[in-house]
Amino acid sequence: MSTEPRLLEVRQKVLKQNDLLARSLRKRFREAGVYVISLVSSPGSGKTAFLEKALTLLRSRYAVAALVGDLATENDAARLARSQAPVKQITTGTICHLDAEMVERALEGWNLDELDFLFIENVGNLVCPSSYDLGEDLRLVLMSVTEGEDKPLKYPTIFNTADVAVITKMDIARAVEFDLEAANKSIQSVRPGMRVFEASAKTGEGVEEFLHFLESRRNFANQDFIGEPVAQCRG
Amino acid sequence: MSTEPRLLEVRQKVLKQNDLLARSLRKRFREAGVYVISLVSSPGSGKTAFLEKALTLLRSRYAVAALVGDLATENDAARLARSQAPVKQITTGTICHLDAEMVERALEGWNLDELDFLFIENVGNLVCPSSYDLGEDLRLVLMSVTEGEDKPLKYPTIFNTADVAVITKMDIARAVEFDLEAANKSIQSVRPGMRVFEASAKTGEGVEEFLHFLESRRNFANQDFIGEPVAQCRG
Repeated sequence: MSTEPRLLEVRQKVLKQNDLLARSLRKRFREAGVYVISLVSSPGSGKTAFLEKALTLLRSRYAVAALVGDLATENDAARLARSQAPVKQITTGTICHLDAEMVERALEGWNLDELDFLFIENVGNLVCPSSYDLGEDLRLVLMSVTEGEDKPLKYPTIFNTADVAVITKMDIARAVEFDLEAANKSIQSVRPGMRVFEASAKTGEGVEEFLHFLESRRNFANQDFIGEPVAQCRG
Repeated sequence: MSTEPRLLEVRQKVLKQNDLLARSLRKRFREAGVYVISLVSSPGSGKTAFLEKALTLLRSRYAVAALVGDLATENDAARLARSQAPVKQITTGTICHLDAEMVERALEGWNLDELDFLFIENVGNLVCPSSYDLGEDLRLVLMSVTEGEDKPLKYPTIFNTADVAVITKMDIARAVEFDLEAANKSIQSVRPGMRVFEASAKTGEGVEEFLHFLESRRNFANQDFIGEPVAQCRG
């Protein structure tokens, strides 16, 4: 299509502006000692259920908060607020991803110094969020056992730009004849060496294991911090 | 963001060009007497499984074919080809939707006069495909019982631009504690009066009912055709 190159060019400028803002956000997060995790997945993969469980468990030992993006409704913020953690909804209208500016705006009024962990749940989408850095320390991609084991092959970029994967809804894996080996093979072929957790927000399976991983990552990041942000390991 | 208005402007030009091409495609489809159905949904909602079942059942009494879009892989075309119907894969790279030009290009070499039904499976995405007319007669939005009953509220545009809805994976509705009434309420609040089918590609439940609906729609469209396309009922 003849107009595509122009569209791409404008989009690249938007991305560049986003990257600069994300870099300053990352610096703020690091200086405040808050470890930031973003969540991306297809709509309906169970991001919110997983996050609600994680917030509920973590808040007994850490100061945690969450931002949650959606095109419309505040449903997810209401669900996450049941964890008793501070939560803000970002509604994006027709935009299929969060960007650094939306995150920065949503953080107004929050004292980052008081937080240990901040979670950012992106809009449910396997394409758009991949290009937008939000200043996070760790990007988590979730896929549920109902989505088909080849999702990573079909949406390689979102798996490539993520740091770890969580397979959700493991409690119904048998009912939907989920093939764990095939799913792992798909993930590893797109992002070799990626750490994969298996979890169920309903039974709690795997959630604590994931949280221990986050704690050790946070400790490592804070140890390592000597005024400059650590290099991002994103590919 | 300061660059957003420019980005929107360029995007509107792309859309306008797409609309012109979609209009000419719609005319070609109508003249050839082929009824065209597009499928949109979140990744993993079961578009391909539903379509495979529909193609397999329909091809005993009609000439059917399918185009299937994905960012990468030809996995879905391979699955659909098991129905013995002609199938072509459209790989979009990093683009999160099909457009009319991709459809036109994929149709090269096919004689539309020989077809009764053409299905176009869009890239799994609840945002991007909504703005792109593909020249289809009917746009079908699918949501699975595992996705959460409020998906239509969170992604109103894709439900608004669709003509009918199919709730998929009904065979596991009980296992995932799906609330059919809540889902229907969400759909109707976004798109009042929308016809909703409940189906399972695995058990076959609801698929024949949907196909009868398509047959009657096709008969109606062909009866109505006197050289000009009928008005689109899309909202």
